[in-house]
Amino acid sequence: MTADLPIPLLEGLATTRAIRRFRDEPIPDTDLNQILWHATRAPSGSNRQPFRFIVLRDGPVAIDARRVLGQTFRAMWADKRAADAYGTGSGTDATSPKARMAETMQHFVDHFEATPVVVLACIKRDRDPGPTEGASIYPACQNLLLAARALGYGGVMTTWHALAEPALRPLLGLPDTVGISAILALGRPAGHHGPVRRRPIGELVYDDRWEGPATWAHDPEGTRHTAAGPRR
Amino acid sequence: MTADLPIPLLEGLATTRAIRRFRDEPIPDTDLNQILWHATRAPSGSNRQPFRFIVLRDGPVAIDARRVLGQTFRAMWADKRAADAYGTGSGTDATSPKARMAETMQHFVDHFEATPVVVLACIKRDRDPGPTEGASIYPACQNLLLAARALGYGGVMTTWHALAEPALRPLLGLPDTVGISAILALGRPAGHHGPVRRRPIGELVYDDRWEGPATWAHDPEGTRHTAAGPRR
Repeated sequence: MTADLPIPLLEGLATTRAIRRFRDEPIPDTDLNQILWHATRAPSGSNRQPFRFIVLRDGPVAIDARRVLGQTFRAMWADKRAADAYGTGSGTDATSPKARMAETMQHFVDHFEATPVVVLACIKRDRDPGPTEGASIYPACQNLLLAARALGYGGVMTTWHALAEPALRPLLGLPDTVGISAILALGRPAGHHGPVRRRPIGELVYDDRWEGPATWAHDPEGTRHTAAGPRR
Repeated sequence: MTADLPIPLLEGLATTRAIRRFRDEPIPDTDLNQILWHATRAPSGSNRQPFRFIVLRDGPVAIDARRVLGQTFRAMWADKRAADAYGTGSGTDATSPKARMAETMQHFVDHFEATPVVVLACIKRDRDPGPTEGASIYPACQNLLLAARALGYGGVMTTWHALAEPALRPLLGLPDTVGISAILALGRPAGHHGPVRRRPIGELVYDDRWEGPATWAHDPEGTRHTAAGPRR
C-alpha cells in the first residue's frame, strides 16, 4: 500500500469494485464526513440537489432499520439464488465465478447488520416518480462510492429495498414526498479493489446510431471481460 | 495548468462543474475512447451493464439527431426561462448568478448543434421502466463526466430529451426495449472547472433518521454554498 499517494481520478474510475465483505472496523467520523461531502458535490438537475443521505450506524433507529433491511435482503437473495440457479451448471464448481459470487452475496446478506456503515440514499421529489429522476441522485451515489475508495474504503449500492419500505418509512420518519433510491453498504474491504470486469467495449459503445460500430473504441490491453450468462 | 499531474480522485469529485460552453475544438478519438471506456467501468445491478452509449458527432444520422435535440432544447428552455421568471428579481441584474445562469443556458441551447461531442445514454431494459433503473445507468454517466474532466474536458448531463424521443427513436434505430436515460454534451471548456456550490452539508446529510442532525458532518472551510431560490 502506498497510502500517502492519492489515487488518480481515472485510475479510481477503473478500479472501484463492488465491495460486499468488510473488515470489522468502524469508519471514523472525519472519513465519513469526507465521503458524504464528496457525494454531495455531484451534479443534479438544475442543481436542485434533491439527494438526502441518511447514515445508519448504531443509533436507536438505525439498529432497527438495519435489521429490517437485513431481513429483506436475506429473503430477496434466497429467492434470487434459487431463481437464477446458482447451484447448477458452473455453480456446482466452488471455484467458478458464479459460485464465488453466490458465496459473496450470501455472506453480504448474512452479515448485513454488521456492515460498518449503511447509507440510505433518498430523493426529495417535486414531481411524480419516474425513470429519469435517478439522474439527480445516482451520480451522488457513485461519487459516494468513489470517495470511499479514495479513502481506503469500499462499498456496494443495491436497490433491493422495495419490500422493506413499508416498515422503513415510518421508522425513519420519511415524508410522503421522499423516495428511497438506494441502500449503500460501506466499510474497510476484506478483499481489495482492482480492475473491474465488463463486456467488450464494442458491445457498450456505438457510433452515430444504435449498434453503429465505434471503430475508434477499444479495450486497453489487459482489460478483463465478463463471461456470458445472467451473472458476470 | 499542470497538465502532466493527474487529478487526484477526491479533488476530481469536488471540482467537476457542469460545463455548458465549449471551445471550438474536437475531442480526438483516443481521448473519446478513454472517456467512454471509463464510463463503462461503473457498477450496475448484478453487473448486467445495461448501459449503451451512442456517440453523436458528424455522422449522417448524428447530424439529424443533434438538430432534433437542439430544437427540443431551445423550446424547453424558452418555456422554462419564462416559467421560472429569469427576467425578474435578481435576474434583471446581468451580473447576478440567476442572470448569468440564464445566459449560459441560452448559449448552450443556441449552440447545441456545435457541441463537440453529444452522447446518448441508453438503457437496455429487461423490466418495466421505473425510478430505480437509473442505478444501473447514471453512475456510468457520472463516470463519463469525471473521465472527461480527468482529460481536460467537461460536459453536462440533461434529461430534456422526452419531447425529442418520437423523432429520435426511429432515426437512431432504437429497439422498443431500449430507453433514453440522458443526453451528455462534451467538449473542451470555454471556462474552467473548480469547486462547486451546494447547500450546507447539514441540509443534505442526516444521521439515524430523516432530518436527524449529523453532528459529525461539516463543510470544509471555503466551501461555496448555493443561494436560495429555484436555480442555484
